[in-house]
Amino acid sequence: MSRFDQQPTDKLFKALESASPQDELPATATLLDAVRFNADGLLPAIAQQHDTQEVLMMAWMNREALEETLNTHRVCYYSRSRKKLWRKGESSGQQQHLKSAALDCDGDTLLLQVEQTGPACHTGRRSCFYLSLTHEHATINSEPLINPDELYGKQ
Amino acid sequence: MSRFDQQPTDKLFKALESASPQDELPATATLLDAVRFNADGLLPAIAQQHDTQEVLMMAWMNREALEETLNTHRVCYYSRSRKKLWRKGESSGQQQHLKSAALDCDGDTLLLQVEQTGPACHTGRRSCFYLSLTHEHATINSEPLINPDELYGKQ
Repeated sequence: MSRFDQQPTDKLFKALESASPQDELPATATLLDAVRFNADGLLPAIAQQHDTQEVLMMAWMNREALEETLNTHRVCYYSRSRKKLWRKGESSGQQQHLKSAALDCDGDTLLLQVEQTGPACHTGRRSCFYLSLTHEHATINSEPLINPDELYGKQ
Repeated sequence: MSRFDQQPTDKLFKALESASPQDELPATATLLDAVRFNADGLLPAIAQQHDTQEVLMMAWMNREALEETLNTHRVCYYSRSRKKLWRKGESSGQQQHLKSAALDCDGDTLLLQVEQTGPACHTGRRSCFYLSLTHEHATINSEPLINPDELYGKQ
């Protein structure tokens, strides 16, 4: 039992702002009840390669995807286009294994530290953030590691 | 004139998947017309400290905030609660200066490399992602650098 267990769900993240590393916190199930999924029941999840710290991608999770990710350590998102769970790498083979996860201060965004096999991006690039932008110009900042046709078995 | 300038707006990011660092790309204004802001006109923007690579926060930008950020190099978000532009640090003093920006493959998320003065989080912590989560337990992973009452002039 933690001193935060008495907090109503909608005040839990506010109460946790003053918590310390030494504090006992509510169980994960209690925190997940308080997570601020959006109107579609989704939460943005940022994936960062745990050792190099490169930000690889951002995708969405519903509660089921988040629970599965925490339980299995294999990262599972929710595909908004396919409207179903998307176990990263299920078609490309480029899986993400969870090293650690953290919610932000208001409980509406997740940061994942992952071990990414090969490219995270469906274009075959390591990271999805390959389109660099200044106020005037844009440039492509990286080349594919693998031909995307190979990733998805078209060759 | 780039070979991608003939692409219709809704196919531009798809066409850019095959672009290389050597390619001339459309001007930023053209890309911004193609950016996939959500139904509220907003885009998630991840802020990463450019040298340590720590992910500091995620917030939202409308087109005006993004243009201002690219033009001034001082990071400006859109506050969903206050429903107006939010020049990071305007009340706390903890500004973010833009080093570089990149869009992701489908043009609906932005990654910012920033120089963050002091804490990025309103709780006084360096990063907003301080609530670590496993399948059973949660822990606070960092202490405030500064008392938040000092940040917002309450002391």
